[in-house]
Amino acid sequence: MRIKVLGAAAGGGLPQWNCTCANCSALRQNQPNIQSRTQSQLAVTADGDAWLLVNASPDLRQQLINNPEIHPDPAKGLRNTPVVGIILTSADLDHILGLLLLREFTPVRIYATRPVISILKKNSFFQMLDRLPGQSRWTEIEPDVSFHAGNGLVCTPIALSSSLPSYIGEQERAALDPTGATIGLILEDTQRTRAAYLPALPAITDPLKERLSTCSTIFIDGTFWSDDELQKIQPGTPLARSMGHLPIDGPDGSLAGLQDLINTRKIYTHINNTNPILQEQSSERRTVEDAGWEVAWDGLEITS
Amino acid sequence: MRIKVLGAAAGGGLPQWNCTCANCSALRQNQPNIQSRTQSQLAVTADGDAWLLVNASPDLRQQLINNPEIHPDPAKGLRNTPVVGIILTSADLDHILGLLLLREFTPVRIYATRPVISILKKNSFFQMLDRLPGQSRWTEIEPDVSFHAGNGLVCTPIALSSSLPSYIGEQERAALDPTGATIGLILEDTQRTRAAYLPALPAITDPLKERLSTCSTIFIDGTFWSDDELQKIQPGTPLARSMGHLPIDGPDGSLAGLQDLINTRKIYTHINNTNPILQEQSSERRTVEDAGWEVAWDGLEITS
Repeated sequence: MRIKVLGAAAGGGLPQWNCTCANCSALRQNQPNIQSRTQSQLAVTADGDAWLLVNASPDLRQQLINNPEIHPDPAKGLRNTPVVGIILTSADLDHILGLLLLREFTPVRIYATRPVISILKKNSFFQMLDRLPGQSRWTEIEPDVSFHAGNGLVCTPIALSSSLPSYIGEQERAALDPTGATIGLILEDTQRTRAAYLPALPAITDPLKERLSTCSTIFIDGTFWSDDELQKIQPGTPLARSMGHLPIDGPDGSLAGLQDLINTRKIYTHINNTNPILQEQSSERRTVEDAGWEVAWDGLEITS
Repeated sequence: MRIKVLGAAAGGGLPQWNCTCANCSALRQNQPNIQSRTQSQLAVTADGDAWLLVNASPDLRQQLINNPEIHPDPAKGLRNTPVVGIILTSADLDHILGLLLLREFTPVRIYATRPVISILKKNSFFQMLDRLPGQSRWTEIEPDVSFHAGNGLVCTPIALSSSLPSYIGEQERAALDPTGATIGLILEDTQRTRAAYLPALPAITDPLKERLSTCSTIFIDGTFWSDDELQKIQPGTPLARSMGHLPIDGPDGSLAGLQDLINTRKIYTHINNTNPILQEQSSERRTVEDAGWEVAWDGLEITS
């Protein structure tokens, strides 16, 4: 199994268009010890040819350009793609807007849970993926039910939360069964090698830890270092936990909560532009690295 | 007035994710005589400080990063932007998806015609621009009614067509008055210097030509060289004219139609990835340059 991190930042990316925090300013001044990151996006393949995308970030167009493995093949005609499917872990805009960049009449297969499919199919923008018969094919997936993604990969969704995106209005919200609104994924190849991808992690439970302990690599929600990180920058904005993101730091943070997973390669991803671990010389970066964690970057590749 | 072309390609950009045409392949092979382009996006300022965006392309995040003039100012606090407004010329996804990248709680003012506002405000995604009171402010504009964009610029919308985006369903379509669904813009500064921006041009009329002749610079729809350009690549796809794009070539194309505008700087933009004028050594490129036209590129700046 080959996993490529096409984007390692949370929504807004790094730098973020309207932000002058230490990280965003450092990048605009071309300071060393920090690198820019696009919004979180994963690509995975079992056979090296057929690629599965995990989510579809708003930066997907640039991310596909940046990664030659996912370019179309001139030998296969004027329009083609090695992308055999896209698995969505939520209906958040940062995870789905990229679908609207995969137009241009090439068929796409989208795997998502029922509430996510319901939300997106109600949105008229997605008519742009149905301009030719069979252009977009939606496959409903559900928590704990494994499915073959068609390239030697078996994926198992993990229910993480039932919280719906902020853009859903009261009426639609009331009509939706939100079960499986936010999921994580366990990816397994034919050699039974497993990896987990959890760009949002609201809480750590024992059953979840047990599943993560069977993986050789886990990508974990590294959005925020602390619960009030965003509020310190902009009063009135929500706390990390209220957005479904367990912070890294603190006695009940993800660093402490997963410290006893000792045989697993642990990687923080979906990192917000404000997070001090992005500064390679920061004490927070040292803390996570000393605890055996890595910090994902655009282009990081895992072969296992 | 300073105008910066942040993106000069049509929808899909150059290269396009699923395309192996001569242009897209040449770029992936790093061949000379062709350069990549992001999706069409303009920025304009009269005072050099306050910038107005014309449309909001799906590539807007990267386009803002690429142009330091439009970066936030650390002296103005942790969250700010020199972008004082966004004028939309249609509700096409290539012109509006970028609005959804301008979240993160910074106020944005959006100028659009009634059908465009109606379409976008009905779409739940745009709730993400209303998470704080007064975050997004929508100002209705109408054809032939000039308005001040708040930074020494006067803008006059020009009605170009009443065709609505393909994603609009029958029911919504029936309920909409499509007048002003697609507009062009005349931008005028305090010195009465004028520029025109028409990323879509369905037809050339005498009144339109008259207005264009009062401009020192015009940016014109250069999407397709020929009417059947897309069909030659992918059968079943629409003709240029049926998409509201007058081709460049031919006795009734835009090159012939605007040839007698001799005192105006003429620039093709919104150029599709398949268009042969993108190849700097092509006969088609020579034809447009011999006729006195320029071909827009990302970063082109016009000061007048």
